Amino acid sequence: MANMTWFVLASTLIAALAMALGVMLPALAMGRSISQALDALARQPEAEQAITRTLFIGLAMIESLAIYVLVIVLIILFRNPLMPYLLK
Amino acid sequence: MANMTWFVLASTLIAALAMALGVMLPALAMGRSISQALDALARQPEAEQAITRTLFIGLAMIESLAIYVLVIVLIILFRNPLMPYLLK
Amino acid sequence: MANMTWFVLASTLIAALAMALGVMLPALAMGRSISQALDALARQPEAEQAITRTLFIGLAMIESLAIYVLVIVLIILFRNPLMPYLLK
Amino acid sequence: MANMTWFVLASTLIAALAMALGVMLPALAMGRSISQALDALARQPEAEQAITRTLFIGLAMIESLAIYVLVIVLIILFRNPLMPYLLK
Amino acid sequence: MANMTWFVLASTLIAALAMALGVMLPALAMGRSISQALDALARQPEAEQAITRTLFIGLAMIESLAIYVLVIVLIILFRNPLMPYLLK
Amino acid sequence: MANMTWFVLASTLIAALAMALGVMLPALAMGRSISQALDALARQPEAEQAITRTLFIGLAMIESLAIYVLVIVLIILFRNPLMPYLLK
Amino acid sequence: MANMTWFVLASTLIAALAMALGVMLPALAMGRSISQALDALARQPEAEQAITRTLFIGLAMIESLAIYVLVIVLIILFRNPLMPYLLK
Amino acid sequence: MANMTWFVLASTLIAALAMALGVMLPALAMGRSISQALDALARQPEAEQAITRTLFIGLAMIESLAIYVLVIVLIILFRNPLMPYLLK
Amino acid sequence: MANMTWFVLASTLIAALAMALGVMLPALAMGRSISQALDALARQPEAEQAITRTLFIGLAMIESLAIYVLVIVLIILFRNPLMPYLLK
Amino acid sequence: MANMTWFVLASTLIAALAMALGVMLPALAMGRSISQALDALARQPEAEQAITRTLFIGLAMIESLAIYVLVIVLIILFRNPLMPYLLK
Amino acid sequence: MANMTWFVLASTLIAALAMALGVMLPALAMGRSISQALDALARQPEAEQAITRTLFIGLAMIESLAIYVLVIVLIILFRNPLMPYLLK
Amino acid sequence: MANMTWFVLASTLIAALAMALGVMLPALAMGRSISQALDALARQPEAEQAITRTLFIGLAMIESLAIYVLVIVLIILFRNPLMPYLLK
Amino acid sequence: MANMTWFVLASTLIAALAMALGVMLPALAMGRSISQALDALARQPEAEQAITRTLFIGLAMIESLAIYVLVIVLIILFRNPLMPYLLK
Amino acid sequence: MANMTWFVLASTLIAALAMALGVMLPALAMGRSISQALDALARQPEAEQAITRTLFIGLAMIESLAIYVLVIVLIILFRNPLMPYLLK
Repeated sequence: MANMTWFVLASTLIAALAMALGVMLPALAMGRSISQALDALARQPEAEQAITRTLFIGLAMIESLAIYVLVIVLIILFRNPLMPYLLK
Repeated sequence: MANMTWFVLASTLIAALAMALGVMLPALAMGRSISQALDALARQPEAEQAITRTLFIGLAMIESLAIYVLVIVLIILFRNPLMPYLLK
Repeated sequence: MANMTWFVLASTLIAALAMALGVMLPALAMGRSISQALDALARQPEAEQAITRTLFIGLAMIESLAIYVLVIVLIILFRNPLMPYLLK
Repeated sequence: MANMTWFVLASTLIAALAMALGVMLPALAMGRSISQALDALARQPEAEQAITRTLFIGLAMIESLAIYVLVIVLIILFRNPLMPYLLK
Repeated sequence: MANMTWFVLASTLIAALAMALGVMLPALAMGRSISQALDALARQPEAEQAITRTLFIGLAMIESLAIYVLVIVLIILFRNPLMPYLLK
Repeated sequence: MANMTWFVLASTLIAALAMALGVMLPALAMGRSISQALDALARQPEAEQAITRTLFIGLAMIESLAIYVLVIVLIILFRNPLMPYLLK
Repeated sequence: MANMTWFVLASTLIAALAMALGVMLPALAMGRSISQALDALARQPEAEQAITRTLFIGLAMIESLAIYVLVIVLIILFRNPLMPYLLK
Repeated sequence: MANMTWFVLASTLIAALAMALGVMLPALAMGRSISQALDALARQPEAEQAITRTLFIGLAMIESLAIYVLVIVLIILFRNPLMPYLLK
Repeated sequence: MANMTWFVLASTLIAALAMALGVMLPALAMGRSISQALDALARQPEAEQAITRTLFIGLAMIESLAIYVLVIVLIILFRNPLMPYLLK
Repeated sequence: MANMTWFVLASTLIAALAMALGVMLPALAMGRSISQALDALARQPEAEQAITRTLFIGLAMIESLAIYVLVIVLIILFRNPLMPYLLK
Repeated sequence: MANMTWFVLASTLIAALAMALGVMLPALAMGRSISQALDALARQPEAEQAITRTLFIGLAMIESLAIYVLVIVLIILFRNPLMPYLLK
Repeated sequence: MANMTWFVLASTLIAALAMALGVMLPALAMGRSISQALDALARQPEAEQAITRTLFIGLAMIESLAIYVLVIVLIILFRNPLMPYLLK
Repeated sequence: MANMTWFVLASTLIAALAMALGVMLPALAMGRSISQALDALARQPEAEQAITRTLFIGLAMIESLAIYVLVIVLIILFRNPLMPYLLK
Repeated sequence: MANMTWFVLASTLIAALAMALGVMLPALAMGRSISQALDALARQPEAEQAITRTLFIGLAMIESLAIYVLVIVLIILFRNPLMPYLLK
């Protein structure tokens, strides 16, 4: 099998796998934050603004972690900087 | 076995596997958020609006993580950017 | 063994396996949501409507995750977009 | 060994395995819902109707997940859409 | 080794293994439901009828999941629909 | 090694293994039910009859799951329906 | 290596292994039941009779599960019904 | 390597391994029972007799499970009923 | 396969995998911190400033850990210091 | 490699491994019992005698399980009953 | 494949992997400390100074552990003391 | 490779591994006992003597389990009773 | 591949891996101690001195464990006492 | 590869690995003890002396377990008693 074939295969496999693994714990962390925010809302409804503000900043930071993985995956699929070495 | 065969096989396998893995923890996180929302509703029925609003935004953000995986899977199945290198 | 045989075998195996894995955590999440809804009903019977409404929307969103897997599995079994490359 | 033999073997193995895996977490989720329903009944006997109604709808939705697996397993055992490619 | 031998071996192995795996979590779920029912009885003896009724319906639904596995196992041992392809 | 040897070996191994695996979680479930029954007895001694009745029905249902495994194991050891295909 | 050697080896290994696995969770379940019984005795000393009666019946049922494994192990070591096929 | 060598090796390995595995969960179960007994003694010192009686019967039953493993191990090391077939 | 091919393959695989693994526990830690901050807000709304300040410093320190991994991954993908040895 | 070499190697390996595995859970069980005894002492100092008596009997019984493993290990290292078959 | 190639490959792989593994538990530990600090702030706002001082010293010590790993990784990537032996 | 080499290698490996495994759970058990003793001291300072006496006897018994492993490891490293068979 | 190459490779790999593994649980332990110290500060602000003193001694002892690993890793990377045997 | 090379490689690998594994649970145990000591200090500041005395004796005993591993590792690296057999 040619070198290029191996490269395409491996990139495809790892892209899907890394994405699947990479959303796992951010999802869990989001679930935890949201459920705690709902609990906080139920206990202190008048602090709604502070709670939702903190929640959304938090969710954004967790999302950023999943975005790191997405970025690496997209780099690998569309613009792998190591590919020129392979084409030579 | 030809290179193309390997590629088709691997893409098919990883697509199904990644999808199955990728919905796992988002599902768990959703379950957690929903169950906490129900708990909050039972404790503070008059805060229903704030609770359901926060819940739906939260569910949407978790869903977005599962969508990332779905997008990568669909790219692999329908429009793999690395496939032209293989056809050459 | 011919290429087509490998493809049929792998698709059959991964379809069943992915389906089995893919319903696992959605099932758990549903169980959690339902059990919490029952708990909420027992504590606040008069909020029954809000509770069951939230529960059913939640169950639908979790179900949607399992449906993603089902859709990918059915695509693989009935209309795999990569199959034409193999038949050539 | 002929191709057909491999196919029959693999289908038989994965059918039984997927069914066994696929009922695992739905069973757990059912157990959780039922036990919570019993707890709710003990705390709020007069809400029996709402509780059992919610419980049965919930059990049906969890059961539907196990049914998805059963359907895929039966398709594989009795009407595999990929089998014609193999017989050619 | 003849094809038939492989088939008999694999069917025998998977039948026993799937049965053993398939009763695992239903057993756990039953244990959970029963123990909760006993707890409910101790707290609310006068709701005995509603409790045992709900318990038995629940146990039946969990049992049905184990029965699915048993059915697939018996089909594989006694009437495998794929066997004619092998005998040809 | 003759076919029959493989068959005898595999049947012996899987019989013992399946039995050992198959009693695991039923044992745990029984332990859970019994310990809860004892707890219920300590809290509500006058409901002894209802408690022990529910407990014994529950234990019987869990035992039935272990019996399923035992039955499959005994079928494999003494009357395997697939053995005639092997003797031909 | 002769067929008989394989058979003796495999039977010896699986007998010890199955026995070791098979007592694991029954032991845990017993420990749970006994510890709960002791707890119940400390809370309700006057219900001693009902508690110890229930405990001993429960322990006997859990023991029965370990006995199933022991029986299968002894059958394999002393009277394996499949051995005649091997000696022919 | 001669058949007898394999047999001696395998028996030695499995004997030590099975014994080590076989005492694991009985030890845990004993620890649980004893710690609960101590807790019960601290809460209800005057029920000492009933507690220690129940504890010792319980420990004996758990010990019996470890003894089953010990018996099988000693049979394998000193009087393996399958050895005559090997010596022939 | 040439040396360069192996290097490109391995770097691509490990980059995606390390990124996916490396965001896992930071995500969990963030989720925990955020959910606790929300809980703190609900209990002590007037300490909002101290809470959010501490939270953001904490999130930054956790993020720094994920950044370490990202840096190593980017070094490997774009400027691997060991590559010159390979090109010689 | 001669038969005797294999035997010496395997015995040495399994002896150390079995001992290490065999003290694991007894150690945990002891830790649990002791910590519970200390808790009991703190709550009921005047029941010291009953507590320490029960504790020491319990520790002795757990120790006996570790001794079983030690005995089997020493038999294997110093007086393996199966060794004569090997020397013949 | 030349020796140098193996060395470059292995160093690259282990650098990324070790970094990913090495930030895992420090991240968890930080999350725990921060969440506890937030809890402490909510309970005792006037002790803010002592709390944040202790928190930052603690975070620094945990960070130091992650730095150890980073240092080893950077040594391996940029200045491996064992490389001269390889170049000879 | 000569027999003696294998023996030296295997003994060295298993000695270090067994020691590392063998201190694991005793360490955990000690940690548990000590932390409980500290808790007991805080609750009942006047029972210090009984507490520390029980603690030290307990620690000694747990230490004895780790000593068993150390003894077996030292026997293997310095005076392996099976070595004469190898030197012959 | 030359002996020296294997040695350099293995040392590099194990150094990074051991460091990553070796900081894991010390990090967790530190996180636990710090979070408990913060909790203690919140409950008893006036005992700040005793708390921080105990905390820092404790952190130092845990750090010492991580230092052991670091020392062994540095010995392996810079001054392996076994290397002379290899150079001969 | 010469015997000596294998020996040096294996000793180096196991030394680092055993050290890393061997500090894991002692670290956890220390963390537990220290955190409990801090909790005790917060609850009973006047018992500081008894608490810190018990804590330091306990930490020393846990440290001794890690020292056992360190000793075995150093013996293997610097003075392996089995090495003379290899040099002969």
